[in-house]
Amino acid sequence: MDTKVMLTEKEMPTRWYNIQADLPEPLPPLRHPATKEPTRLPPPLFPEALNEQEFSKERWIEIPEELQEIYKLWRPTPLMRAHRLEKALGTPARIYYKYEGVSPAGSHKPNTAVAQAYYNKKEGVNRLTTETGAGQWGSALAMGCMFLGLECKVYMVKASYYQKPYRRVMMETWGAKVVPSPSQETEIGRKILKDDPNCSGSLGIAISEACEEAFARDDTKYSLGSVLNHVLMHQTIIGQEAKKQLEKIDVYPDMIVGCIGGGSNFAGLFLPFVTDKIKGKKPKLQIICVEPQACPTVTKGIYTWDYGDVAGLAPIALMYTLGHSFVPPPVHAGGLRYHGMAPIICHLHKLGFVEARAEYQIPVFKAAVQFARTEGIIPAPEPSHAIKVVIDEALKCKESGEKKDILLALSGHGHFDLGAYDEYLSGKLQDYEYPKEMVEKALADLPKVA
Amino acid sequence: MDTKVMLTEKEMPTRWYNIQADLPEPLPPLRHPATKEPTRLPPPLFPEALNEQEFSKERWIEIPEELQEIYKLWRPTPLMRAHRLEKALGTPARIYYKYEGVSPAGSHKPNTAVAQAYYNKKEGVNRLTTETGAGQWGSALAMGCMFLGLECKVYMVKASYYQKPYRRVMMETWGAKVVPSPSQETEIGRKILKDDPNCSGSLGIAISEACEEAFARDDTKYSLGSVLNHVLMHQTIIGQEAKKQLEKIDVYPDMIVGCIGGGSNFAGLFLPFVTDKIKGKKPKLQIICVEPQACPTVTKGIYTWDYGDVAGLAPIALMYTLGHSFVPPPVHAGGLRYHGMAPIICHLHKLGFVEARAEYQIPVFKAAVQFARTEGIIPAPEPSHAIKVVIDEALKCKESGEKKDILLALSGHGHFDLGAYDEYLSGKLQDYEYPKEMVEKALADLPKVA
Repeated sequence: MDTKVMLTEKEMPTRWYNIQADLPEPLPPLRHPATKEPTRLPPPLFPEALNEQEFSKERWIEIPEELQEIYKLWRPTPLMRAHRLEKALGTPARIYYKYEGVSPAGSHKPNTAVAQAYYNKKEGVNRLTTETGAGQWGSALAMGCMFLGLECKVYMVKASYYQKPYRRVMMETWGAKVVPSPSQETEIGRKILKDDPNCSGSLGIAISEACEEAFARDDTKYSLGSVLNHVLMHQTIIGQEAKKQLEKIDVYPDMIVGCIGGGSNFAGLFLPFVTDKIKGKKPKLQIICVEPQACPTVTKGIYTWDYGDVAGLAPIALMYTLGHSFVPPPVHAGGLRYHGMAPIICHLHKLGFVEARAEYQIPVFKAAVQFARTEGIIPAPEPSHAIKVVIDEALKCKESGEKKDILLALSGHGHFDLGAYDEYLSGKLQDYEYPKEMVEKALADLPKVA
Repeated sequence: MDTKVMLTEKEMPTRWYNIQADLPEPLPPLRHPATKEPTRLPPPLFPEALNEQEFSKERWIEIPEELQEIYKLWRPTPLMRAHRLEKALGTPARIYYKYEGVSPAGSHKPNTAVAQAYYNKKEGVNRLTTETGAGQWGSALAMGCMFLGLECKVYMVKASYYQKPYRRVMMETWGAKVVPSPSQETEIGRKILKDDPNCSGSLGIAISEACEEAFARDDTKYSLGSVLNHVLMHQTIIGQEAKKQLEKIDVYPDMIVGCIGGGSNFAGLFLPFVTDKIKGKKPKLQIICVEPQACPTVTKGIYTWDYGDVAGLAPIALMYTLGHSFVPPPVHAGGLRYHGMAPIICHLHKLGFVEARAEYQIPVFKAAVQFARTEGIIPAPEPSHAIKVVIDEALKCKESGEKKDILLALSGHGHFDLGAYDEYLSGKLQDYEYPKEMVEKALADLPKVA
């Protein structure tokens, strides 16, 4: 085959795929953080349309035309064949990657950011707040709000705000207001700063500030970049495209590999395929979720009810969790440092349709550099976890002689992560063991759901 | 029309276009820096194949298949219609942009980098040296050498080496060795450091170091990222693709706009079109070269014989120049800070086929932000000069009601230039007047060619 399979704009999917229509067992409902009763998403934070999508059982949901036009600025994205990596590995396996780094924000995140901005706008919401750690999600939402004409306010973890100024400037270039969190702009921020004026922030604090502002202002709602069902559904445009692209070259993958933090990037790719496995059409399809050893939610966490956020204000979900109060070691894959996991992915794992592995960051960066030195693209640290597993599997094929078709979720480029590459290349990168004791402590503090 | 026009890999051009076959008057030959006699490129620095291409009169030169395969990692690049910018401007003009930022190095530079690495490799050269300022060219050559299996040594201007570490890390990720210039590795570097241990370097010094090493080592040649005829020819794949893409939607541009530093990006786009103007087929086609007011080579320089480099060691060319000893003010568009200009562009300007304009950097960044806030892509400072002119021209069309088709050369993204955006957005960016006295001083010191 050629190096790339492209789709025309006319071939771009016009509907999102909703896995909830095809689950063999329904997803357990969310629970209210206070009452512990089944609940919807908090209406002060989310518009009605997204709340409907969150619990919808419709198989297909139309992508509004205005949104399709925005997608076309970077979609359909290319499906690439990693000829040069295969050759370097000497493997008979065929490696394909679906590359989402071509979006202006550099990752898959804009697929849901523009959708969320669209539905908020439609319901008269003029402002969105959100949180961001390393800046991937914040920049995607800043861009999404810009396209739809919404104001955007991003609470950026203070340590990142000062250490990664480029991501902040990217958001500001698209017109967003970015404040270092904890800030003086919310009650919780002021309280934390009073206790510790030098607090460098955390994603948990930033979420609380963003939510507090959305609760307090009628014109403002809140936006979340992963985990929730509607977010994963918006990302299914990735997998639908990949399926069409592979069909053009008569390929159905034997194995799909991606990284999971909140889960939206990889679910976006695999959901349109896993349905074939659920229906018994592709019983041998292997779907491998890859997470960091430093935050091994699915491989070492427990499947139970836990809060979505650190403060215990978000709905409670049944999911794999390391405990909502667990703060993972500072690995460079900032997007994979979440204590929980998308309930859809956990549910599919529990039912045996997907599996999970955990990887250390030094071998992950070794794989990333091998990828950069063959395919050219410098991958973000997050999908480099999946690259590590793809290389392992391709080498197994070399041993066995199997000609597997392996599909990789390459969710974004590493242009803003070159500091991490520098650490790796200069031998300064350190690895983090699974912090067992911290997890045990966090798991002792779970909400009690009947 | 749709947002994008894509080409398949099979539609990618398989030949470079050599304008020297179609010039109404031949290009004046280069002169030797010492003897002032007509000369070829110095053989210790350049392989035979590139020297032949430099002076060839063949209209079409085949792109070797191995090279085509590498191009396909990011080519054909998209041609985009700027619907959202047009709407924001309220113009009846139609704006198209050919986007080269999709290459892994983020600009058009890899088109020639991989070609130069290929021809060197073919003649048994195993190492290339080059210089880089802000890092665009150095990273393209690092990637090019990686694909072909050559070693790459980059002398990076010391100020940039420490201020822009991400570009350095990018080169190292692809396997290049990067040293801050002036360095202890060459005679000229040691001499400069002895006189001034804190010297922060300049592009001129870095060129001299890279050339000295290539002269000194048999296994090593030197590589230049712009200005020369063969470099411009390698870039014509851009314009050939754009022409095919516009043909698909039945458009021939009324106006083509691009930025010029050494000239290779814009020549790459317009050369396959200017030939129609030379042949009288498109007499009204307007081609506008845009340069910074701080370094206005074509608009304020003189057309005369001058050295290609600061030290006076490179061949002498007949071109517009501000004087080889002129050091432009530190505008953020580092790629546009060259005292001279590609002889082919100067020749076409002298013959009346292209025109030139100069722009200040503050209005240039204003235009860049308007582009980012409509089209999503954050452009590099260099092509933002062209965006400024495209917006001006589109607004003129709004006045006159003309439905011009305007084609913009969008040579790269600004992911590594967000520091400059930060200065602009926070009101700290300063403008630089044309440094008339410095240019007058530099122009008093030109080589004498009979």
